[in-house]
Amino acid sequence: MSESYPSPPPNSVGMVETKYVELFQDGLELESGVKFGPITVAYETYGTLSPSRDNAVLVCHALSGGAHAAGYLPGQKKPGWWDILIGPGKAFDTNKYFIICSNVLGSCYGTTGPSSIDPSTGKPYALRFPVVTIRDMVNVQARLLDHLGIRQLLCVTGGSMGGMQALQWAAAFPERVKSVIAIATTWRHSAQQIAFNEVARQAIMADPAWNRGDYYGTEGPRMGLAVARMIGHITYLSDIGMEKKFGRRLRNKERYGYDFTSIDFEVESYLRYQGHSFVERFDANSLLYLTKALDYFDLTQGTGSLMEVFAGVKTLFLFITFSSDWLYPPQQLKEVAQAIRRTGGDATYCEINSDYGHDAFLLEHAAQAPLIESFLLRAHRHTLEGDSGEGI
Amino acid sequence: MSESYPSPPPNSVGMVETKYVELFQDGLELESGVKFGPITVAYETYGTLSPSRDNAVLVCHALSGGAHAAGYLPGQKKPGWWDILIGPGKAFDTNKYFIICSNVLGSCYGTTGPSSIDPSTGKPYALRFPVVTIRDMVNVQARLLDHLGIRQLLCVTGGSMGGMQALQWAAAFPERVKSVIAIATTWRHSAQQIAFNEVARQAIMADPAWNRGDYYGTEGPRMGLAVARMIGHITYLSDIGMEKKFGRRLRNKERYGYDFTSIDFEVESYLRYQGHSFVERFDANSLLYLTKALDYFDLTQGTGSLMEVFAGVKTLFLFITFSSDWLYPPQQLKEVAQAIRRTGGDATYCEINSDYGHDAFLLEHAAQAPLIESFLLRAHRHTLEGDSGEGI
Repeated sequence: MSESYPSPPPNSVGMVETKYVELFQDGLELESGVKFGPITVAYETYGTLSPSRDNAVLVCHALSGGAHAAGYLPGQKKPGWWDILIGPGKAFDTNKYFIICSNVLGSCYGTTGPSSIDPSTGKPYALRFPVVTIRDMVNVQARLLDHLGIRQLLCVTGGSMGGMQALQWAAAFPERVKSVIAIATTWRHSAQQIAFNEVARQAIMADPAWNRGDYYGTEGPRMGLAVARMIGHITYLSDIGMEKKFGRRLRNKERYGYDFTSIDFEVESYLRYQGHSFVERFDANSLLYLTKALDYFDLTQGTGSLMEVFAGVKTLFLFITFSSDWLYPPQQLKEVAQAIRRTGGDATYCEINSDYGHDAFLLEHAAQAPLIESFLLRAHRHTLEGDSGEGI
Repeated sequence: MSESYPSPPPNSVGMVETKYVELFQDGLELESGVKFGPITVAYETYGTLSPSRDNAVLVCHALSGGAHAAGYLPGQKKPGWWDILIGPGKAFDTNKYFIICSNVLGSCYGTTGPSSIDPSTGKPYALRFPVVTIRDMVNVQARLLDHLGIRQLLCVTGGSMGGMQALQWAAAFPERVKSVIAIATTWRHSAQQIAFNEVARQAIMADPAWNRGDYYGTEGPRMGLAVARMIGHITYLSDIGMEKKFGRRLRNKERYGYDFTSIDFEVESYLRYQGHSFVERFDANSLLYLTKALDYFDLTQGTGSLMEVFAGVKTLFLFITFSSDWLYPPQQLKEVAQAIRRTGGDATYCEINSDYGHDAFLLEHAAQAPLIESFLLRAHRHTLEGDSGEGI
């Protein structure tokens, strides 16, 4: 199959492979108190781990992403979701760094989630899958790194839900993280952010084909999932970005259709396409679980304030936000940067001017790359207190 | 029934009655080209028409409103939707002005709409109801005023979809409108505004119980309509308003539920309540038709620019926007005010500081009332050129 596709471009990591490992045979104690396992983890790596094991970068994906962050999988024309930033000579330079990306707990791209087979029943977990949190996802990643023999990360990075994981890494394992690059994310959801997720969940659960989660082997809640994704897509774009991209342009016609069967506006066509194509590639129950994890995430839970979370943390931080991102408004990460500085920590905050809204973290290559490159060089020179910089 | 309710407060218009009139026995030519009729119009009036018929104010309602704008209907505890501004001594002072409010074409509160019986079949129109526009709604209102013997209006006013009707009145019948108060509205939808409506429509149409609009006599698309309304409600509130009202407060518990059966956050509870209570009072097909009318509305259609629309118009304009309204951002009405001034017209623009978001037009009594009161006094003294100010 793959022979029929053009060769990857020279600055690509090329053909890649998703690997799988089974962890937590004895179970992982989740934040909810439930003990759960075993957990299969899907992951990819790019580049080479240095002999001193000091060049590992963990890349964390967002809601609908997976372990395939860069390069090409056999039979697929599109590269990984962050290929613009990961590769030889790119911001996350695979000639220098060893990049790891794993699919999160609860997702549907290879790591154990609600669509996985429950070994105790031989059937998919569905809603019998336990509710998981960002903290649980990070605990799974930490065990994966143990498995790979990596004690300390040069950097943990990610946008959106991936940025939450990066923040959680620094809070939970500050001694294992020399630096964090958190992009277009927040330290906890506001009421509006919860509200958008709740409506997406309600759209799925409103679909009779959802069948309280037990839809495997059937078509499943296709319409509900499509509507949920359409809601998401509005929040991923900015008002001005949508206006520039679509405006009031009509789809294939000179005038309004004056009916409910045809499509009038280009933006309607875009949303329907995004909604219905998502159904082909994502599991509705995973969307329920992952949006719940986003809503539950509160970096200050158990401590009370951001300053308490970051007190004594020697990790270096780079925060990147985008001016038109109204799903994760820049102000939220600015608060984190300010709290870290007030504790005496080291935080760089950059707001990039962009019309791409929240999606900018996946699209703005030119503005992000130099910030990331120079920050990684600085992180490489940085030593955590009382730390030899050696591997495991 | 009504005896068991407390008496209306003294600044209320008191008990009111919805009246009905059948118009367009010969049919109304709609903007789509379709000829449609007869049309029943539900309306209410408050106050007394002056002998010179120069004190009539037309109040136009928003998406989910109706003719019942003020006072109390028998058996109902809640007053009309704009009771805070309409009544004796209130901004729209019924001791001075004769207030008219009619339900729009396509709605489900008494005026002919998709849930009305098609006299040619004896069954509800459903999707056989023609697509209607803001211009069509205004043409129906104009005929109602003819029926009531009112040639010229002292003022046309409304918020949101009601504000679009007010703008359309000035554009279509400038000689019949001495003044316009348009609140929290726009001259045409942006791509994002269309997108939110499209997702609401998709949520309804995704519900199998919608049955391509033929659901009358059944429960109908209750889940789809609820989801559509939840999406709407997020856009009616502001980020900061939701944060103040709900934040991350949990519903009746100390900790997360870690399940999908219970409700975690207060904001989730609010949205579900709003969604499901709406189902009891609104017709899903009407929501499809009215959101389509909102999306089609473009005051410049057929002319090309706002300045051309308002060239020579002698109507006085008052525009009111709210700082946290992101559904209809202040900038959009500011553009209208600026265009009117550039044509030599008279436009006052006020942006009220409020955390209530789009809903502010229904809630901010104290800030709106003095603006409206003084503007109406000025409008009363105003004479349209070549116009005697006399009635029909």
